[in-house]
Amino acid sequence: MTQTQRSRNTWLTLLIIFTFFLSAAAMAQNNHLYRIAKIQVDPAQLVNYNIALKEQMTTAIRVEPGVLSYYAVADKKEPTHITIFEVYADSTAYKAHIQAPHFKKYKETVQHMVTFLEVTDVELIGSAKKPGM
Amino acid sequence: MTQTQRSRNTWLTLLIIFTFFLSAAAMAQNNHLYRIAKIQVDPAQLVNYNIALKEQMTTAIRVEPGVLSYYAVADKKEPTHITIFEVYADSTAYKAHIQAPHFKKYKETVQHMVTFLEVTDVELIGSAKKPGM
Repeated sequence: MTQTQRSRNTWLTLLIIFTFFLSAAAMAQNNHLYRIAKIQVDPAQLVNYNIALKEQMTTAIRVEPGVLSYYAVADKKEPTHITIFEVYADSTAYKAHIQAPHFKKYKETVQHMVTFLEVTDVELIGSAKKPGM
Repeated sequence: MTQTQRSRNTWLTLLIIFTFFLSAAAMAQNNHLYRIAKIQVDPAQLVNYNIALKEQMTTAIRVEPGVLSYYAVADKKEPTHITIFEVYADSTAYKAHIQAPHFKKYKETVQHMVTFLEVTDVELIGSAKKPGM
C-alpha cells in the first residue's frame, strides 16, 4: 500500500466514523411526539365509533408524512374503554394533523359518541420489538 | 390463447385468490396478547427503575421468540407514572415470558421501586403505521 492509499484509507475511516456519530445523534435527538388518548364511548355507538377511528388512523398514516404510528386497543372487560397510542414526527406534524380534513371529519362524526376524553403527553423511555412489528 | 392455456390461467387465478383469502384469514385470527401495564415508581429510584425496565425489554425481545413488541413511556408532567404497551405472540408465549430468567431478575430488582402496578388485558381495535415504525 502506498502512502497516498494509506492516507486515503485513514480519511475514509474517519468519514465513516463521523457519519455514524452524526446519524446516531440525529436519531437520539428526534423530536417525536408521543401521546396517549383515553376515550370512553357510548356503548350503543361503539361499532360506528370504531369504524370512524380506523378510517381516521389509516387515512392519516397514508396521506400525512408526519403521522408515524397508531395503536388503538379496547379493555377486554370494558370494550367501550379505548386507549390510543400515537406517535407524530414532531409538534409541527401534530399541528398539521389536527387541521387535516380527515381528522376534522373524524372529530365531527364522533362528537356525540365520545363520553370521555383524556390526552396525555408522554416521553419515550424505550421501545424494543421484533422486525416488522 | 389455446383452450388449455385459458383453463390453466383460470386455475392459477383461483389459486391466487384462495391463497390471498387464506393468508388474510390467518392474519385476522392471530392470537396476539395485548396488555397495558400502568406503573408508578418511587421518585428516588426512577433512574435505576428505567435501566432495569430497558434491560428487561431488550433481553426479552432478543431471546424470546414470542415476545413481539414493547413501548414504554412516561407522563411528561409525572415522569414516575409509566405506561408499557406490550404485545406477545399468544398466551403460551406470555406464560413462558413470566418464567424467563431475565423477567424474574427484573421483578426482583424492581420489587421495592414500584409503588403501584395495574395490568389490563386489551384487544386490538386497529393499528396503522409508517414502514419501519
